[in-house]
Amino acid sequence: MSNLPLRRAVVVGLCITAAWAQRAPAPRSPEVAPDGAVTFRLAAPNATQVTLSGEFMQAAKPLVEDASGVWSVTIGPIEPEIYNYNFTIDVVKTIDPANPDVKTGSTPSTIASVLEVKAAQPAFYDGQSVPHGEIRTDWYYSKSIGALRRLTVYTPPDYDRDRSVRYPVLYLFHGANADEAAWTRLGRVNFILDNLLAAQKAKPFLVAMPFGYGIPPGTPRRAPDAGSPSSAAPSSDELFARDLIGDVIPFIETRYRAYTDRAHRAIAGLSMGGGQSLSIGLNHLDLFAYVGGFSAGLRPADFATVFAATAANPKEANEKLRLLWIGCGKDDGAMVNSKAFDDFLNQHKVKHTFRESDGAHTWIVWRRYLNEVAPLLFR
Amino acid sequence: MSNLPLRRAVVVGLCITAAWAQRAPAPRSPEVAPDGAVTFRLAAPNATQVTLSGEFMQAAKPLVEDASGVWSVTIGPIEPEIYNYNFTIDVVKTIDPANPDVKTGSTPSTIASVLEVKAAQPAFYDGQSVPHGEIRTDWYYSKSIGALRRLTVYTPPDYDRDRSVRYPVLYLFHGANADEAAWTRLGRVNFILDNLLAAQKAKPFLVAMPFGYGIPPGTPRRAPDAGSPSSAAPSSDELFARDLIGDVIPFIETRYRAYTDRAHRAIAGLSMGGGQSLSIGLNHLDLFAYVGGFSAGLRPADFATVFAATAANPKEANEKLRLLWIGCGKDDGAMVNSKAFDDFLNQHKVKHTFRESDGAHTWIVWRRYLNEVAPLLFR
Repeated sequence: MSNLPLRRAVVVGLCITAAWAQRAPAPRSPEVAPDGAVTFRLAAPNATQVTLSGEFMQAAKPLVEDASGVWSVTIGPIEPEIYNYNFTIDVVKTIDPANPDVKTGSTPSTIASVLEVKAAQPAFYDGQSVPHGEIRTDWYYSKSIGALRRLTVYTPPDYDRDRSVRYPVLYLFHGANADEAAWTRLGRVNFILDNLLAAQKAKPFLVAMPFGYGIPPGTPRRAPDAGSPSSAAPSSDELFARDLIGDVIPFIETRYRAYTDRAHRAIAGLSMGGGQSLSIGLNHLDLFAYVGGFSAGLRPADFATVFAATAANPKEANEKLRLLWIGCGKDDGAMVNSKAFDDFLNQHKVKHTFRESDGAHTWIVWRRYLNEVAPLLFR
Repeated sequence: MSNLPLRRAVVVGLCITAAWAQRAPAPRSPEVAPDGAVTFRLAAPNATQVTLSGEFMQAAKPLVEDASGVWSVTIGPIEPEIYNYNFTIDVVKTIDPANPDVKTGSTPSTIASVLEVKAAQPAFYDGQSVPHGEIRTDWYYSKSIGALRRLTVYTPPDYDRDRSVRYPVLYLFHGANADEAAWTRLGRVNFILDNLLAAQKAKPFLVAMPFGYGIPPGTPRRAPDAGSPSSAAPSSDELFARDLIGDVIPFIETRYRAYTDRAHRAIAGLSMGGGQSLSIGLNHLDLFAYVGGFSAGLRPADFATVFAATAANPKEANEKLRLLWIGCGKDDGAMVNSKAFDDFLNQHKVKHTFRESDGAHTWIVWRRYLNEVAPLLFR
């Protein structure tokens, strides 16, 4: 190939595109220095105030404008990790327009720029020189919801090699404002599990990541039917639970070589998805043997009703559950309710792990929880 | 499931998240009226000028501020399609912060918001009630490039059903500033092919969509080695061609049930990727029987060198190629060079199709080209 005169051809492609885009080159942002200090820049000569907020800092910080209209601020050194951040330009909270790495989801409130500070050695969530699994995106028609839905699935490295093998399945849910791509895009499910498998720290299993909203954000509210009061309409969570049990699990167990018994199913989720995984999991011991909640969205006032079955029959829960794992970060607003749930489970003598970790309500924590919980599954 | 008291639990999850986000609700944008008129809104009380640019309009248009600091403009009715657009807020070109649908890529210049105007009937690129293929994301180590690379693959609906069947492969390339997810995310490869297959208008085939940069954008330039002048370093396009032939094709033909002969390989791309597909395809008649260029990045001054083999031996090209398809939109800046390439091929009596279509340098055109070309492949 080296003799092909391709070099000039690619330059043409780039030049044409740049001209069409009609956009001046933006100043480089973010720029990570060798010591881990990070400089953020924005060309905004007409702005009167620009601030930076991010998961690597406590409070928002102003950028300072130079004579050419470029605003900048340097933060850190910042610890190696993957962080979200936003610029607020004259009250408008938006992304860093010079950074192509943009976090998206199912609502605008989740839009942010992504900063990755690399360590000298690869992290547990980095792609390494190990066998790699696959991420598959499937479409299925959900009878429960009456719509075509998208589903993300991780298959371990050997999945296509030996077709006599069946696999357990972890059903893994995202949080509010996110979508079915969040756990792979931001959670790095594939690299975390690839690395654990290569180190023989986890059993191979499939991960099925459905879209967690029964009613997608932005759906116009229907006028109540003549015969049925609107309060009888199922909630987004109720529809999601029906979709999971009536559509997602059957789809996975038909399309993939999955085991179909409770001992080979786990259910976990983060934030809104943690509320869902605990509610659905603890009320369906017939379906799941492993239940996890990461920084779960929980309301103590509802424990007695949502978890009535568990409170009434802790013996069954203790016999059937091989793992009930609750985790929350010490700087997370969800900690109060997580502690209350820990108390509730203790009060009813339901065996469980309560993990109080460092961290706040961020993907930093959830990647670490996955890395910590995956080795405990299907043992 | 309907008896589970899940409704209040989900409300909690949402409320907690909203509070943490510390963000005021944005005005609804974009809002599509029943007649197809679209209103764009932005809350920016401190801005002095906000404009809208988009693929549905010729020139940028100002938004007008109301007493509450909300800027807005109504455009259209706009024809049903999928469009990109941007806001420019006081010189800063950025996304619509109220729209979760964000187009991303490998450079910041590609970041835009996405507007989808739905027709009464589903479009050829919409998900419909037909069997659905899968999108797979694979990681492979490229020896040519010395890095772990990501690859997107479409598998047709029946791929996992009958494991005795092998499939032809279309190698399909994105344009400058984009990445290996562009053809599925913006090009809707999966729905277009699902729909053609259901209508029996195309043969089933795999689509392999690699990352088109041998040198990823933003890579710091290496200092020239002592012994070798920097001009000898391979270009991004040269490295990509080596990666395709030395790594991507072998990976696909090992990992997937693909045919491994030239009659069952097609190569096509758009813009920068069109320059690549034409250069690589026409110089490797031993590997490909079908070659396509969509709005290709081409430079007439290079034709005599890049396509020297084709000019020298048109007979071989005419015998071996089952399809050579060049397309460009009439409003596309690439049309001049596409016409020059059509002239070049005519001058050398190389059989080909030259398709002058409506449209500009946009995904609107490329989705239609895929829909038009897919039925011609592997016949």
